Amino acid sequence: MAGTDMTTSARDGDWARLLPAVILMEPQMGENIGASARAMKNCGLECMHIVNPRDGWPNPAAEAMASGGSDILDHAGLHQTLNEAAAPYTMIGATTARKRGMTKPALTPDEAARRMAEHARSGGKTALLFGPERAGLNNDAVAVADFIITVPLNPAFASLNLGQAVLLMGWACRRELMADAPPVMAEPPESPPAAAGEKAYLFTTLEKHLSEGGFFTSPDMQPVVMRNIMALFQRADLTEQDVRTLHGIIKSLRRSGDAQA
Amino acid sequence: MAGTDMTTSARDGDWARLLPAVILMEPQMGENIGASARAMKNCGLECMHIVNPRDGWPNPAAEAMASGGSDILDHAGLHQTLNEAAAPYTMIGATTARKRGMTKPALTPDEAARRMAEHARSGGKTALLFGPERAGLNNDAVAVADFIITVPLNPAFASLNLGQAVLLMGWACRRELMADAPPVMAEPPESPPAAAGEKAYLFTTLEKHLSEGGFFTSPDMQPVVMRNIMALFQRADLTEQDVRTLHGIIKSLRRSGDAQA
Repeated sequence: MAGTDMTTSARDGDWARLLPAVILMEPQMGENIGASARAMKNCGLECMHIVNPRDGWPNPAAEAMASGGSDILDHAGLHQTLNEAAAPYTMIGATTARKRGMTKPALTPDEAARRMAEHARSGGKTALLFGPERAGLNNDAVAVADFIITVPLNPAFASLNLGQAVLLMGWACRRELMADAPPVMAEPPESPPAAAGEKAYLFTTLEKHLSEGGFFTSPDMQPVVMRNIMALFQRADLTEQDVRTLHGIIKSLRRSGDAQA
Repeated sequence: MAGTDMTTSARDGDWARLLPAVILMEPQMGENIGASARAMKNCGLECMHIVNPRDGWPNPAAEAMASGGSDILDHAGLHQTLNEAAAPYTMIGATTARKRGMTKPALTPDEAARRMAEHARSGGKTALLFGPERAGLNNDAVAVADFIITVPLNPAFASLNLGQAVLLMGWACRRELMADAPPVMAEPPESPPAAAGEKAYLFTTLEKHLSEGGFFTSPDMQPVVMRNIMALFQRADLTEQDVRTLHGIIKSLRRSGDAQA
């Protein structure tokens, strides 16, 4: 995404080695192979296998599109057959939206990611299988897989291109593995949270001046109205700095009234 | 994805109308606008706003890339300013990976999707905001948003292109809404959420009177100070009633100054 911090040399945690490999079955456009490598890199997937690419290998069009993922292309395995590429893997999910006459479970991306993460954690080797752009996976290819992955997209337009399909599945696997990893710390607030006493003093000051300004049309309702105002500010999780700012706002608004008087 | 069934004319369920709009802020490449439209269509998002596109509008390069999403381009809103595009929305999430010195919550895609789904179910209007490809969103643009969305990608290569970012967020919103498809009505808020235009008018009024009251000691810092004040109020998820209350507070505080003058 635009604005992404690319300066860091930080790396993923240990869990990243549990991410699946990607097998591209007879990919057609070099651009799509490159976009797939880029999407893999985004999600921390490292290992790509290419089976019988239409335009040979290496492919300059793939390099051009790979961006930061070009090292994945450099290390990609090239294979003549799917069986050869699939050989080391103990769980393979085949992405396809076609209805097949095969008795194989069809999982959503989340379900597939969960199953693959579990499998990898207990020592298995997992891979995602993607078919050629135009035709998709044929039945022989699907037969190699343990299950089918079907993305429930807009039925009126469910066609993802190859790079987007790799991104979507890569992200599903990444978020599943990360979910149990120690969370990335949110940026700490610049100012500590305001104490109840500081907030109470702020609200007392505000109430006094609102009263002077004729805010409370009915004295009976004053406590209810003030509670609603306090609730509004409580929702903002005020910091000490916020409380100082709000005192300044009260003072300045009162001065702006003076100025016009 | 390859092999996707495109023959169906089926449509998404009723929940799809709760999916967010997409605002593209100063997009540069027409291809990226087209890819964003395609990704929106895949995920069932329909409403696109384009703010000040670099290469003018309409853009043939966008049409060429949009594939099944070209109707989204045909109906996209074209705007001169972000404020104009944002005006109808009551919850805006800004996608950016930059660390900002602003005290605005940074959510993961899943957290953001959950919050936006809840908000939409209780009658709010939600939008996702994406910045220009190269520079990302500037601080003024982020100030319009209720929260930041940061995708925890591979820290060694976190740069998604625009179309991929739209796909990833669109999918996050889609899977969130689909998960609960029989929608459990959240307790409706007592007042509907305030639209961005109402909040912008509130902040303009506040800034004017703060300025009269000598709040801004340094003119250079005025925009930064106002952004921080806006961030404070954005955190409170203001309702229409809150905005009316705050206008009343401003008026009364100014009168209270008069009273003492």
